[in-house]
Amino acid sequence: MDYPNDQSPGAPVRSGIPEHGRIPKYYAVKAHIAVLIEELGEGGLLPTERDLAEKYEVARETVRQALRELLLEGKLRRQGRGTVVAGPKLEQPLSLASYTEGVRRQGRTPGRTLISLDRFPCPQALATEAGLTRGEPVWHMERVLLADDERVGLESTYVAVARVPDLDRDFDPDSSFYAYLHDRLGIAFGDADERIETVLATPREALLIGTPPALPMLLIHRVSRDTRGRPLERVRTLYRGDRFSFTAHLGR
Amino acid sequence: MDYPNDQSPGAPVRSGIPEHGRIPKYYAVKAHIAVLIEELGEGGLLPTERDLAEKYEVARETVRQALRELLLEGKLRRQGRGTVVAGPKLEQPLSLASYTEGVRRQGRTPGRTLISLDRFPCPQALATEAGLTRGEPVWHMERVLLADDERVGLESTYVAVARVPDLDRDFDPDSSFYAYLHDRLGIAFGDADERIETVLATPREALLIGTPPALPMLLIHRVSRDTRGRPLERVRTLYRGDRFSFTAHLGR
Repeated sequence: MDYPNDQSPGAPVRSGIPEHGRIPKYYAVKAHIAVLIEELGEGGLLPTERDLAEKYEVARETVRQALRELLLEGKLRRQGRGTVVAGPKLEQPLSLASYTEGVRRQGRTPGRTLISLDRFPCPQALATEAGLTRGEPVWHMERVLLADDERVGLESTYVAVARVPDLDRDFDPDSSFYAYLHDRLGIAFGDADERIETVLATPREALLIGTPPALPMLLIHRVSRDTRGRPLERVRTLYRGDRFSFTAHLGR
Repeated sequence: MDYPNDQSPGAPVRSGIPEHGRIPKYYAVKAHIAVLIEELGEGGLLPTERDLAEKYEVARETVRQALRELLLEGKLRRQGRGTVVAGPKLEQPLSLASYTEGVRRQGRTPGRTLISLDRFPCPQALATEAGLTRGEPVWHMERVLLADDERVGLESTYVAVARVPDLDRDFDPDSSFYAYLHDRLGIAFGDADERIETVLATPREALLIGTPPALPMLLIHRVSRDTRGRPLERVRTLYRGDRFSFTAHLGR
């Protein structure tokens, strides 16, 4: 019927216009800028807020609201004092493969910065969830994840000290933990349970990842076991919602 | 070291307080209210904004910002004129099973409301993505998803008319499309590719699902094939980010 011809099947239906036909003013501006983004292509420099306000004959605050959403959605990004068209979101497979492998497969260079490495007695909640023993020594390693030197996520790994006794001396935090487990300790992943949800970044997380506070993030919880079914790690990884999507292949 | 004892392993580290120790005032209030939420339990009624502002000795706008985030995160929900503690997020498996099955498994009653059923010539973008032929007749069915009569999502299904010629006459839109395909037409799912990301609801989507505009949503793109590998459907499903999480079991 009124299906816009050749609209991308992943796009919102009827460009997000409510049936009652009243389009919020900022949203109309957002739709105009979305077309402009298509025309400019990745890396293209957007006109200034003032120029856009003049062009669309709206208040600067209206333009600002449209830009804020496009930035949160990862369609635009700040570069110096300007605003440019962002590249597509990174597509990370939901699989037992590591962050490192996933990022490399997309031709990007993975990196990690150590934030903290603590050792503490396993609390009850963690013991229950990860199949560990309450009170046994556990490592908590927190790292910022990088892709081509851009901070894109924050990873918290909990693992029993008994499994990786020399983690603090033996492991280079800017390398793949999974490669370390496999190559140095002969530990291979058997299976894992994951849960994915969207959350808002806390002020601390926003600061560490360098995002605006309250940016929607994708949070992945993982509990994994080795090939013999023994508990391995509990991971909480936060990814920038404007930079990542996750893919899965489902079969019977 | 300073790991808060018995903190849930899924919680943000150090309750989200930046290392420099300057906690935004609204965030301190949010942390207080989070404790209150724990104490009240699901369905518990929160004190009014004014009472909270008095209790924590802050401006009402500060309380409002904390409540706004807790509402967006699905920790609280509006009920009539009050604010109550929300239940846990629904956990939907990432699998070939339908929405219907997933919701039932959690003891909730699934429902759907038809928004539109259109028939149009397949545009190029959809043809490329779903393995259809440009110009061939395609159905577009849009339904609001319900769980226990609560609107929780919006689903757009694109399927070739040749596969389901009588969709408009033969199918009850408040029933499972997958059950219809299987039971009436003998079509079974073989495999599917899914992509999950977080997006902001458009004004139209927010209106249809009944959420505040710009609520973070989880968007799942699906392209599926039948057991003989022939293209079946292209689906775009938007789930309330405050009500849903998705789970996957990963094995080698």
